[in-house]
Amino acid sequence: MHDLIIIGAGPAGLTAALYAGRFRLNTLILEKMACGGQIILSATIENYPGFPGGIFSAELIEKFKRQIEELGIKIENKEVLEIKQTAGGFQVKTHDRLLETKAVIIAIGARPRTLGVKGENKFVGRGVSYCGTCDAPLFKEKDIVVIGGGDRAIEETIFLSGYAKKVNLVHRRAAFRASNILLERAKNNPKINFILDSVVEEILGQDKVEAVKIKDLKRGSLSEFPCQGVFIFAGIKPNTDFLKNFLDMDEEGFIITDEQMKTSKEAIFACGDCRKKSLYQVITACSEGAVAADSANKYLLNR
Amino acid sequence: MHDLIIIGAGPAGLTAALYAGRFRLNTLILEKMACGGQIILSATIENYPGFPGGIFSAELIEKFKRQIEELGIKIENKEVLEIKQTAGGFQVKTHDRLLETKAVIIAIGARPRTLGVKGENKFVGRGVSYCGTCDAPLFKEKDIVVIGGGDRAIEETIFLSGYAKKVNLVHRRAAFRASNILLERAKNNPKINFILDSVVEEILGQDKVEAVKIKDLKRGSLSEFPCQGVFIFAGIKPNTDFLKNFLDMDEEGFIITDEQMKTSKEAIFACGDCRKKSLYQVITACSEGAVAADSANKYLLNR
Repeated sequence: MHDLIIIGAGPAGLTAALYAGRFRLNTLILEKMACGGQIILSATIENYPGFPGGIFSAELIEKFKRQIEELGIKIENKEVLEIKQTAGGFQVKTHDRLLETKAVIIAIGARPRTLGVKGENKFVGRGVSYCGTCDAPLFKEKDIVVIGGGDRAIEETIFLSGYAKKVNLVHRRAAFRASNILLERAKNNPKINFILDSVVEEILGQDKVEAVKIKDLKRGSLSEFPCQGVFIFAGIKPNTDFLKNFLDMDEEGFIITDEQMKTSKEAIFACGDCRKKSLYQVITACSEGAVAADSANKYLLNR
Repeated sequence: MHDLIIIGAGPAGLTAALYAGRFRLNTLILEKMACGGQIILSATIENYPGFPGGIFSAELIEKFKRQIEELGIKIENKEVLEIKQTAGGFQVKTHDRLLETKAVIIAIGARPRTLGVKGENKFVGRGVSYCGTCDAPLFKEKDIVVIGGGDRAIEETIFLSGYAKKVNLVHRRAAFRASNILLERAKNNPKINFILDSVVEEILGQDKVEAVKIKDLKRGSLSEFPCQGVFIFAGIKPNTDFLKNFLDMDEEGFIITDEQMKTSKEAIFACGDCRKKSLYQVITACSEGAVAADSANKYLLNR
């Protein structure tokens, strides 16, 4: 039986493992995809303290991984399908195994939220994308529409401008949630065009994206805007579907914890982007991972 | 008038500045001593994610500093004596100036707590120390007593064993709060001797430390233990005296905030070691700095 199973190997899960390893807990990490979580959707991280000039996200994740490998902690490539409470702790079910553990840290992160407009599903991979860092090279010298108003949308807009002929940023308001430093850079970039107080209502085309239908919210007018790519940055959705009816969540599926990362179930902790909180960043995810491991350790000492 | 004054340039204050700078807030940092806060009391940081093999604390702080200098934020070497509420915000008083600001982030950290035994004050700098990293070279081939049971005490014990003839760790219990990875290292070190279920009741000597009086809590017996150095790691005390009657604190002086780092006064935020919380670490201080800056930015946008 493990002391602790950590589900997810993004910044939150890896930092939880770093602390759990130093507490000498018998720890296993389960990750269904590659390490890094949503961080791999960004090319560079500029606001993680300790790296002046920024660091490539792949390099930062590699450093996180090396640090826990030094402690001898293993990451297994498995998706968790279910967690069940047992007499002595929990049973964690994957496709091929039933694992036993005394405590669980859930660090399963989130994925990009879809916009929910007509044509979006149809054109995924044929012009519609949720990751500029992944797909930008496919849109060299093309006209692109980006949808969103947060840090991620602006970062990706700037990144895409290095490839596209023109990047048109559609945002439903005139004000932005994004940091001013990013907005300044975008506004000073001649390849970026702002389309404000507007929303995309439909994505149009035959086999691939050819245009979007844009509604001007101030005038109420509709227009067709020709483009070959649509990048959507509409926030995040936590990967918590398999935990419904098991843990308390908000209406969007973010897990509710207290400040010690305790969920509604004893011995289950949650941290990172799957958790309800005010600021979704690498630095906050890491900190929450450390706190979750500390809380798990205190629980195990007193159980 | 500044948008934001950050008091303290440890990991919490510097990360708050990193985020405030990216929000393009007109930000000033005030620090009464050197940058780094309590981090400079440790030689190496092993559990800050992103640095496999650990990093010298001085080097980590230098990286934090460079990252905010890139944003053009200044650190002024001034002690804050008082904060006063005004009609338009706050007046921050230093020895030679009155500074005006709309919001304040308090990241003033903490200092080592004294033990409060006879002889302690008398022998500070003459055998009594609160920082192994600072004073270890003074105790080459000497006999040392270390008091404490947390991570910091064990880290320092191991560090001191590189200089001293023998390091005797006195701890009031048989169980430790410290991480097992540190305890294992200490137990495997032939220069380290554990004196458990015991407390130091007095520090003895003429002009400098010559011995300590140790009480065995199980047997109730007292004995004199010859030594030339006494290192005390008895927890931390927040540097919040000048804020009494201004902000809500707990009985030990730690500032009470919510999870967004909001104190009992609007537009005043607190983060890092001066804040009441469950885990005092570099990674948690940094995260809280980011959250405090985000909360300050949201306040300034809506004020």
